[in-house]
Amino acid sequence: MSKLVIVGTVAFDAIETPFGKTDKILGGAATFIGLAASQFHVDSAIVSIVGGDFPDSYLSLLKENHIDISGIEIVKEGKTFFWSGKYHNDMNSRDTLSTELNVLADFKPKVPENYKDANIVMLGNLHPLTQISVLEQMNQRPKLVILDTMNFWMDNALSDLKEVISKVDVITINDEEARQLTGEYSLLVAARKINEMGPKYVVIKKGEHGALLFHDDNVFFAPALPLEEVFDPTGAGDTFAGGFAGYLAKTNDVSFENMKNAVIYGSTLASFCVEKFGAERMINLEHGEVHRRLQQFKDLTQFEIELT
Amino acid sequence: MSKLVIVGTVAFDAIETPFGKTDKILGGAATFIGLAASQFHVDSAIVSIVGGDFPDSYLSLLKENHIDISGIEIVKEGKTFFWSGKYHNDMNSRDTLSTELNVLADFKPKVPENYKDANIVMLGNLHPLTQISVLEQMNQRPKLVILDTMNFWMDNALSDLKEVISKVDVITINDEEARQLTGEYSLLVAARKINEMGPKYVVIKKGEHGALLFHDDNVFFAPALPLEEVFDPTGAGDTFAGGFAGYLAKTNDVSFENMKNAVIYGSTLASFCVEKFGAERMINLEHGEVHRRLQQFKDLTQFEIELT
Repeated sequence: MSKLVIVGTVAFDAIETPFGKTDKILGGAATFIGLAASQFHVDSAIVSIVGGDFPDSYLSLLKENHIDISGIEIVKEGKTFFWSGKYHNDMNSRDTLSTELNVLADFKPKVPENYKDANIVMLGNLHPLTQISVLEQMNQRPKLVILDTMNFWMDNALSDLKEVISKVDVITINDEEARQLTGEYSLLVAARKINEMGPKYVVIKKGEHGALLFHDDNVFFAPALPLEEVFDPTGAGDTFAGGFAGYLAKTNDVSFENMKNAVIYGSTLASFCVEKFGAERMINLEHGEVHRRLQQFKDLTQFEIELT
Repeated sequence: MSKLVIVGTVAFDAIETPFGKTDKILGGAATFIGLAASQFHVDSAIVSIVGGDFPDSYLSLLKENHIDISGIEIVKEGKTFFWSGKYHNDMNSRDTLSTELNVLADFKPKVPENYKDANIVMLGNLHPLTQISVLEQMNQRPKLVILDTMNFWMDNALSDLKEVISKVDVITINDEEARQLTGEYSLLVAARKINEMGPKYVVIKKGEHGALLFHDDNVFFAPALPLEEVFDPTGAGDTFAGGFAGYLAKTNDVSFENMKNAVIYGSTLASFCVEKFGAERMINLEHGEVHRRLQQFKDLTQFEIELT
């Protein structure tokens, strides 16, 4: 069993989809990552920042899910990071309606002392320099560093982004971002170029079209589970990353073979996330449910062909 | 081993992609289906029509690939069906530049006598009434009838299309067409509605995003193999269908379990088709190449998770 440090936003989201809209609800990359990783009962800590307006009940909720919150700084006089967005009818694209950085503008992450020896670090989407500052606080180079990022940093902080990319083992990125980052349309070629930038493992997330894991000449693919209804995609990518990191932390095995399973777990957990608004479905998600859905993933993808 | 009847166009295509353009080359749904099915050395016959301008060398090529061409009517004074199209940069969409029906306008398919007892019939994309006329010529209801169709018939011959759909066991259709046919965005719900229209098995093709097979409450998914370069997508869907039908004909087992393998074979063969213009890659495709790519499909999708 490994210790897992999760860095990212803990936030308020307000979401509108064709199915309805929410007021400010619990959101943020680290929240989704943490809740997903909590399925594996690993020792995990979130490093983040919130304002005085952030409800104690949300912090308690994270604690109840076995997440160490001593690394979440509370700025009493500040306001919590807020994002609101509206999904289009096909749920594959969205417009950001507003982004209020608030306390996140001055976020200086502080890794708790007892997590500076963590062997897995999950860097959720943040400014690349903020992500780097977390790595610099670790007592030693962690066994595995996983990076999530997005196109915003490619547009606004590319050289910083390239620096953090050069320092990590795994990058998770979506298909359009992989293409933007490399200028290559073929994801196979894009992944190879990203490999050359540093990460030995590249995970390309394709939303409803699944996820690809690349390492050397190996490729593994996990589909998204076909669902009757995608209710709200918010947090699905972070949930995927959290399931991926949590499974690796639990098994403490970072081989390619085991990463395949981590991708399957990530996809499985993401398939729950999209079924309700925000993180609602991830709270109190039960082991039995996850187990049944893993079986669905096996049924969906496994076959027996005799190669002659 | 089953006999396989393939109905569809044998045609000229002129194709333009970001990689280049062709003059009139060998194309047509039945051509791609037949070449893919020929990988399995089954007894297959193409039922189609061409004009006097169709080269003997193309007919010989089909014969050399073990395809019975006695059901291909040659109208000496007529011209062969011609399609030309241009793919956009992402290769996921195309514009039709011209369609000349020529001899296809009066096509009355005639199933050769020695194929009227075939137990598998693959109805390639044609007018639904033309597809039905083939079924009516069979001595008895075939063991398995597979239908491919497209949105053109939904727009222009919906009631005829629904009639042929009600008569088949398997339908292959792309994701947008499944949505158009049912008015449902979720492919899971769309497949269920198509089930209710007749076909017990529904295959939804998602191009570069793979294919889904639905039967009762079972779902199986096969990705498209990630490729360095998609050179020309023309015929990939028909090649998929031909691999699917050919494998089922060879194994003579139409169970859901075996259809999974048929989907994998279809995807495997389609992954070759897109590597060169038109049918070029499918001609003289060798067993060893197919075998190696099947192994790649296994590596891409198979995993070992202990469910606890």
